[in-house]
Amino acid sequence: DRSRYSAGPGREPSGIIEAICIGWFTAECVVRFIVSKNKCEFVKRPLNIIDLLAITPYYISVLMTVFTGENSQLQRAGVTLRVLRMMRIFWVIKLARHFIGLQTLGLTLKRCYREMVMLLVFICVAMAIFSALSQLLEHGLDLETSNKDFASIPAACWWVIISMTTVGYGDMYPITVPGRILGGVCVVSGIVLLALPITFIYHSFVQCYHELKFRSARYSRSLSAEFLN
Amino acid sequence: DRSRYSAGPGREPSGIIEAICIGWFTAECVVRFIVSKNKCEFVKRPLNIIDLLAITPYYISVLMTVFTGENSQLQRAGVTLRVLRMMRIFWVIKLARHFIGLQTLGLTLKRCYREMVMLLVFICVAMAIFSALSQLLEHGLDLETSNKDFASIPAACWWVIISMTTVGYGDMYPITVPGRILGGVCVVSGIVLLALPITFIYHSFVQCYHELKFRSARYSRSLSAEFLN
Amino acid sequence: DRSRYSAGPGREPSGIIEAICIGWFTAECVVRFIVSKNKCEFVKRPLNIIDLLAITPYYISVLMTVFTGENSQLQRAGVTLRVLRMMRIFWVIKLARHFIGLQTLGLTLKRCYREMVMLLVFICVAMAIFSALSQLLEHGLDLETSNKDFASIPAACWWVIISMTTVGYGDMYPITVPGRILGGVCVVSGIVLLALPITFIYHSFVQCYHELKFRSARYSRSLSAEFLN
Amino acid sequence: DRSRYSAGPGREPSGIIEAICIGWFTAECVVRFIVSKNKCEFVKRPLNIIDLLAITPYYISVLMTVFTGENSQLQRAGVTLRVLRMMRIFWVIKLARHFIGLQTLGLTLKRCYREMVMLLVFICVAMAIFSALSQLLEHGLDLETSNKDFASIPAACWWVIISMTTVGYGDMYPITVPGRILGGVCVVSGIVLLALPITFIYHSFVQCYHELKFRSARYSRSLSAEFLN
Repeated sequence: DRSRYSAGPGREPSGIIEAICIGWFTAECVVRFIVSKNKCEFVKRPLNIIDLLAITPYYISVLMTVFTGENSQLQRAGVTLRVLRMMRIFWVIKLARHFIGLQTLGLTLKRCYREMVMLLVFICVAMAIFSALSQLLEHGLDLETSNKDFASIPAACWWVIISMTTVGYGDMYPITVPGRILGGVCVVSGIVLLALPITFIYHSFVQCYHELKFRSARYSRSLSAEFLN
Repeated sequence: DRSRYSAGPGREPSGIIEAICIGWFTAECVVRFIVSKNKCEFVKRPLNIIDLLAITPYYISVLMTVFTGENSQLQRAGVTLRVLRMMRIFWVIKLARHFIGLQTLGLTLKRCYREMVMLLVFICVAMAIFSALSQLLEHGLDLETSNKDFASIPAACWWVIISMTTVGYGDMYPITVPGRILGGVCVVSGIVLLALPITFIYHSFVQCYHELKFRSARYSRSLSAEFLN
Repeated sequence: DRSRYSAGPGREPSGIIEAICIGWFTAECVVRFIVSKNKCEFVKRPLNIIDLLAITPYYISVLMTVFTGENSQLQRAGVTLRVLRMMRIFWVIKLARHFIGLQTLGLTLKRCYREMVMLLVFICVAMAIFSALSQLLEHGLDLETSNKDFASIPAACWWVIISMTTVGYGDMYPITVPGRILGGVCVVSGIVLLALPITFIYHSFVQCYHELKFRSARYSRSLSAEFLN
Repeated sequence: DRSRYSAGPGREPSGIIEAICIGWFTAECVVRFIVSKNKCEFVKRPLNIIDLLAITPYYISVLMTVFTGENSQLQRAGVTLRVLRMMRIFWVIKLARHFIGLQTLGLTLKRCYREMVMLLVFICVAMAIFSALSQLLEHGLDLETSNKDFASIPAACWWVIISMTTVGYGDMYPITVPGRILGGVCVVSGIVLLALPITFIYHSFVQCYHELKFRSARYSRSLSAEFLN
């Protein structure tokens, strides 16, 4: 029974670690809430909302386990419970918040939203063109001998994203000669397209990292500020 | 019936969006044509020809649907119709024309045509050498125990491009020891070869982006120019 | 019988090369130990411990072969022997120690431990989030029609690491539409995430290489120092 | 009959193109040989030897076709002929010699031989360590439930190179938990290791390209020099 890996809290080592972490986070949140001067503004901060989202699912899932019983059929089939359980993973993000690397990543993403949008637009435009073309070449031109994998545009989209990123699972691949030529063009243009906005993100990340390192050096001298954050 | 995704216009949400976009593009084109001073030169501009190519297939496909009927066998089997339908994807490019990222990409491609040709020549030369070698090692040396996947040079070319770009679908792979050594050499040289001209394209892209950003800042002050474009 | 490749020493060409290398290493170690002034400090140096680890398994494995006989069932089934045999590979690292490229790599890894940790944290956080999400979307939402490959979180972790690094073996892949959208997001974010800390490692590597090259030029003028190392 | 792609010369369009190219090359070589002052030195130049190797296989293969007949069994089964036919691909390299991109590549490879060796050593050392470890973890620890794909060290080497370069055909993949953890480490370290020496090759390539462009601008003013090359 491999589904045991995602089972109820407090039974296995990983459950105990989770319980300790959640306990610590709850205590930290409560203390921060009590100490904060402006209670109203405290609740509205995005990072505090993430904290709340990271802590709540644990308590709801524990409560539901208590009321329904660990081994009941209801729990096994309950989609809500599985969704809640998955959301408990967010405490990993909370734990990582104090790590400089992830702070850098967050700051980079905030500053590079233009480049992120560019990356997204490049992928979408390429996906639209290549999926339509591949669907036509592999499936549309000759319906009798067609490649069933490319029957629909969404399926062709999946092939395009998996090829452009050079993953290539091998669940779908072109078999006709024009389809294969298109596949080669798609892969090479994918390498070029994906690499272009990433260079911008690189440079921004390097800059953010040095800024945060400098700020962190100053910050460690004024630790009291963090408590009131 | 998954082919519904590419079905006739105006029935689904995506069809309605398409109809609105095409209507807007038609209106824009007509107004630009009326306002333009030199009608002859207007028709010859490459971007206007793309616009025409982006709009026309929609009207032809709608007309054909009207005359032949939505569910007729003729429409289902008609290759022309499927090609036209695919061409309707070009309005995505038209929509994307006003986006700075794709303008940058277009300018980069125009300036880096030498590097693009270099990339193409590298790929072609490597493909010629590795496909001939792999076909010989995997199929040619011993016809009895040969790998049927590498029976022809074009098939070996497909393997080379999929390996050099590190996609690796897994539909073809070498099985003999010399073929595998060649495969390793092919993959590593592919990573090196493909990366070399892309560095040039990077630098050009960064430069184009900053130029266009600067030009766009000036451009927004003289919006009237765009109307006469 | 393909397991012959990892068979006992001294029978094949590779065995003879190994015997010569091990003989040379043993002699070098013994001479260095005799020449060294401080015997106690010599034993404690990490590189000397690696040398010992690189040489010892060969002698133990030869001794065990002598006592148990080459073809005995005991040797074939003995896990200890196979582990020891595998450890004999460490003499490759010893041989490579004098190579400037691997010295550079070692120095880079020592200086970039912060970036290495960052890379590890990025991978772990992304793995935690994407594996939980993919397990939910592919397996958790509908247990009847679920994708059996994503039955457990560890299996989903394997899929995430193989997708984020764009390897894509094809043993596991999402089949539902939300799972495929998540897969695309996972692959693109994997390319971005993995690339970010690697840029730092690049710059450090280039710097280390030039430093070591400069030091090596000076070093070759004072060769006597190496003997007492 | 797909083997037609590699059939005799002069029958298909590609055969005619080949015949014209070979004719031109032969003429060029003969003229260069007659014009050259020092006949002995001309023969010894490496580029002229490549030219000879590029031209000769065509004539030998044509002669053999004339003597044995196009459709004889002898030709179909003759390994020598297939090897010769494959060598006819070298005229592609000859054609590409005059292209600035491939001249740059040649010059880069000549200057970066140290970095090429470094890349090779990195790959070899990583292959030695990871193949031994993966063979042990997947096959060696428990012979009853072992993964037959990892039965020998050379097979494990193939898996290592295909994983480190992120190709991932999917013909071999680890199935045990320790093997999968090793697989993840192998892939990530492969991305880092392969990328490091390539950065050096990048910088050298950019420098070589600018040098050759500058030299080519001067060169075009003194075209007479080329004739006597």
